[in-house]
Amino acid sequence: MATLAEKFAALGAENAPGQELRQQTDHLAALMRGAPIAGVPVDFSHGDVDAFAPTPGAKAAWDAGFERGGAQAYTEYRGDAMIRASLADRLANFTGAPISPEQELIITPGTQGALFLALGALVDQGTKVAVVDPDYFANRKLVVFFGGEVVPIPLRYTADNPGENGPDLDRLQQAFETGTRVLVFSTPNNPTGHVCSEQVIAQIARLAVRYDVAVVVDQLYSRMLYQGESYSHLRAHPEAPANLVTIMGPSKTESLSGFRLGVAFGSAEIIARMEQLQAIVSLRAAGYNQAALETWFQEPEGWLRQRITQHQAIRDDLLVVFRAAGLPCAAPQAGSYLFPQLPALAVSYAQFVQLLRLQAGVTVTPGAEFGTDCSDSIRLNFSQDHAAAVAAAQRIVEMVERYRA
Amino acid sequence: MATLAEKFAALGAENAPGQELRQQTDHLAALMRGAPIAGVPVDFSHGDVDAFAPTPGAKAAWDAGFERGGAQAYTEYRGDAMIRASLADRLANFTGAPISPEQELIITPGTQGALFLALGALVDQGTKVAVVDPDYFANRKLVVFFGGEVVPIPLRYTADNPGENGPDLDRLQQAFETGTRVLVFSTPNNPTGHVCSEQVIAQIARLAVRYDVAVVVDQLYSRMLYQGESYSHLRAHPEAPANLVTIMGPSKTESLSGFRLGVAFGSAEIIARMEQLQAIVSLRAAGYNQAALETWFQEPEGWLRQRITQHQAIRDDLLVVFRAAGLPCAAPQAGSYLFPQLPALAVSYAQFVQLLRLQAGVTVTPGAEFGTDCSDSIRLNFSQDHAAAVAAAQRIVEMVERYRA
Repeated sequence: MATLAEKFAALGAENAPGQELRQQTDHLAALMRGAPIAGVPVDFSHGDVDAFAPTPGAKAAWDAGFERGGAQAYTEYRGDAMIRASLADRLANFTGAPISPEQELIITPGTQGALFLALGALVDQGTKVAVVDPDYFANRKLVVFFGGEVVPIPLRYTADNPGENGPDLDRLQQAFETGTRVLVFSTPNNPTGHVCSEQVIAQIARLAVRYDVAVVVDQLYSRMLYQGESYSHLRAHPEAPANLVTIMGPSKTESLSGFRLGVAFGSAEIIARMEQLQAIVSLRAAGYNQAALETWFQEPEGWLRQRITQHQAIRDDLLVVFRAAGLPCAAPQAGSYLFPQLPALAVSYAQFVQLLRLQAGVTVTPGAEFGTDCSDSIRLNFSQDHAAAVAAAQRIVEMVERYRA
Repeated sequence: MATLAEKFAALGAENAPGQELRQQTDHLAALMRGAPIAGVPVDFSHGDVDAFAPTPGAKAAWDAGFERGGAQAYTEYRGDAMIRASLADRLANFTGAPISPEQELIITPGTQGALFLALGALVDQGTKVAVVDPDYFANRKLVVFFGGEVVPIPLRYTADNPGENGPDLDRLQQAFETGTRVLVFSTPNNPTGHVCSEQVIAQIARLAVRYDVAVVVDQLYSRMLYQGESYSHLRAHPEAPANLVTIMGPSKTESLSGFRLGVAFGSAEIIARMEQLQAIVSLRAAGYNQAALETWFQEPEGWLRQRITQHQAIRDDLLVVFRAAGLPCAAPQAGSYLFPQLPALAVSYAQFVQLLRLQAGVTVTPGAEFGTDCSDSIRLNFSQDHAAAVAAAQRIVEMVERYRA
């Protein structure tokens, strides 16, 4: 069993988005090639809520919540009953299957909070958990923190033959056959933007039912679906597993990350455990903030369509920049992450990422955070000012040329 | 080792403040004696932020945070650097010992969040943790959740000879001698309002240093100190232990619970672990909300004094009501909790608490939540409308008479 010191060593957060400022970088001066590259600094480690503002009405909804006073400050741990009721309706409508607001939904402090609570409800010392590789970096860390064992399931996500992309279902079945009790995965995938096809979702459902595996599916980015793509909700599948929790939240597409709001919905037993855990973790998502959920899935006519169109235009321009420079990059089907692959460099990839920030004003997240074979990739959240993002991508390419092995 | 099902059974949150609505109460009709007792409903399970409003300027500070946009939405996991800097100054001033804003302070989602992170950083499978009994109910639950072993330290808190009240230091030394690695306690104590004397704090410091025990001290209510009382900050003691975390927050005295804000400050190593854990728990305290901390310890002249005076007046009136009815009740030295003891009743204490809510419109928290020998007590947070609180206390007394064994 890992000691507490070992557990925390595995939790290293110094490369996590927003934490770069805490790094020691004095040693990099000796490695630097050429002068700084001028340009508007871009922090691709998270979306820019100044470029893409919070959904209209979010602040007014917060104000109204504050005015409601005590009733909004002290909600049930799973969140305000009235907000859950209206939210359950809208989420049922979006995902295509009913949700009991009393028993099957919990409001959490961000989708990070939802992931933490869901895995805390399911993972114990020695629990084997299938984790897609690459996937959101916290998934592996959470499994380790709760004492579980990560069983990696490779994800194919190349730019060629995208129809063949997806998680390795043979490996998944093998994992389920050999004692894996939980599967956690994101679709759209973070960091690649890959969306599981209807066939893959059907297969996951069948395997989970057959082997009685609990599934946590992170659908954070499922609203931002690009032209021509289609999305399958596992929970709406006729053979959806009984122990299933779906996670969403308004932090990304809707730019409400500053409110720290997420929701988890699914199996009443798991949701009940999540609430018990929430009671000792942080009581509830901040009461007044919960009120901002009233704007979610009720945005003005055309708002979502416009936001998708704008992101798709940025995506397409960045793909052109990276592919023209010979950096392989799968086209994200949804969400605002790009995960280009770098060539062999004369510095380590970790050093390159730091140099990129210091020398070119471009912050990205190292691929090594996301999976075992991704250290030569970098993740960009391209929910940024369009022109600044394209210029920053060009600086990345220039930096790659400078540091090419 | 406890199974996950056993762990969650121990986490039962159905009696926790605000969760009463989820209880099944149909079976109580058969037990009911007499008619309902009319009166303004009072929920003593938490403070009433309508009766005692959030500190002046909190909403304006939130608005300013929202206007700052992305920089305030995405702070370091340990919280915005500028807010930490000014906060560290004020907290150092209040507690009487310096705090490094870079290394020794983290902003958390409420003091609950701080307690969770602190114990998560220190408690592992089998870690023995000294927990004062009675104390805040989450302390025991957190130790169990992290796989630790609770070593109870009895607290004396009678109304007679208050000078003799306090935790049993012989038991504490015994615990430390026999392998206890962590001590967690609140002062002022929740639920009794007992404040550890300077001598007790000095003894705790000496014992912790001698046995190299890490200490988490919850000082949530230390600002609301009643006339004639004095307060000792463990962290300012000349022999304060090296592994010490102090927890505070603006949820109670300042009525900012709806913002979910807390802080922990102390040992850089523990704070660093807490941030690593925060990164997978919920990333950060909601970004815009952090801005409300700018009002903390910077309230208008006279504001705190008035708030204390108002609470002291309620405290004194409630003590008169309970003591006149023969319900023993220690006078809280700080904070807004009362913990009166009930006589033998014809129904169980759990049933009485439910009947109190259904029949008399009075919500309290059962004493059993707080310790092993407290099931005959009830906890009241008397941060309420003054007249309504006194009338509700009178209804409690009337209910006690009706159900007396």
